[in-house]
Amino acid sequence: MSNQGFVVWFTGLSGSGKSTLAEALAPALRERGLNVEILDGDVVRTNLSKGLGFSKEDRDTNIRRIGFVAGLLARNGVGVITAAISPYKDIRDESRAMVESDGAVFVEVHAAATVEQCEARDVKGLYAKARAGEIKGFTGIDDPYEEPPNPEVRCETGLDAPDISLQQIIDHLESQGLINGGRS
Amino acid sequence: MSNQGFVVWFTGLSGSGKSTLAEALAPALRERGLNVEILDGDVVRTNLSKGLGFSKEDRDTNIRRIGFVAGLLARNGVGVITAAISPYKDIRDESRAMVESDGAVFVEVHAAATVEQCEARDVKGLYAKARAGEIKGFTGIDDPYEEPPNPEVRCETGLDAPDISLQQIIDHLESQGLINGGRS
Repeated sequence: MSNQGFVVWFTGLSGSGKSTLAEALAPALRERGLNVEILDGDVVRTNLSKGLGFSKEDRDTNIRRIGFVAGLLARNGVGVITAAISPYKDIRDESRAMVESDGAVFVEVHAAATVEQCEARDVKGLYAKARAGEIKGFTGIDDPYEEPPNPEVRCETGLDAPDISLQQIIDHLESQGLINGGRS
Repeated sequence: MSNQGFVVWFTGLSGSGKSTLAEALAPALRERGLNVEILDGDVVRTNLSKGLGFSKEDRDTNIRRIGFVAGLLARNGVGVITAAISPYKDIRDESRAMVESDGAVFVEVHAAATVEQCEARDVKGLYAKARAGEIKGFTGIDDPYEEPPNPEVRCETGLDAPDISLQQIIDHLESQGLINGGRS
């Protein structure tokens, strides 16, 4: 009755291009007839995690909630896209296990721009604030980012244009039979 | 592409029969071909609201999160069933507005057993503990329950057997075109 649901789980530093790719991926999936939901880090913090901070414990709680909701949606045939930094490997792996136990497919996508590349762009001015000590516990500056050793897709978002990365992701989803060729 | 999603939002005292009806309603909807999710109060507290207590503010936050997730699922065609006490009218109305803004239908079902009826059964022994002062802020004892003035369905769960209430709900969903006649 339903499509095979899946979760495209972006992970990467602030400014690495996760949200840009998520926003580009969503319409590409919708034009293939899928129901799509984006669980953006900010939306989730507003609606599910207000009051949580950026300690390891609070970040883990936030990511677990995203994993729980992503799993609920994906097991009902939705193509879910998450775009939180999700810096810790163990919690990403926990989310994978939760989604897979719901019978859905977990696709980890590493937006692999380096700290230097993200900081050079610094679109939101957050790296400057982190360097100045105005933001504490900033991932990549004074809080760790644990790279995924074996993501389903690794996008060189510090080097490649977004359409290159987007095509990589779509190619992967097609190769796994999660989407059809579509119109593009 | 999707069914019209909806949320059957149970409200009622502890022990009023919300979970019993939710568990009976879910298979009745599934056999009509719907995707169904139950957002039970306990499941949600574990996965979305750990750390929240039972103050008005914390209860409100918990209910808002249920409303947010229910809306996400319902706008993807899922038949969502929530079974939290949800004692406060204003937050139930806020959930209704959130679900309806997602293009889904909100069906408030009042499990209308009285405190006396619920306390006489006291399946989990919670009313005895509340009377003994071992549980504080217990809805109906020392915390308010605001009855819905105009629920879509009012079930006399203190008097009627569950199958009577279940049929009332199914009749309503059929009358609104949200489900087909099905096999029952």
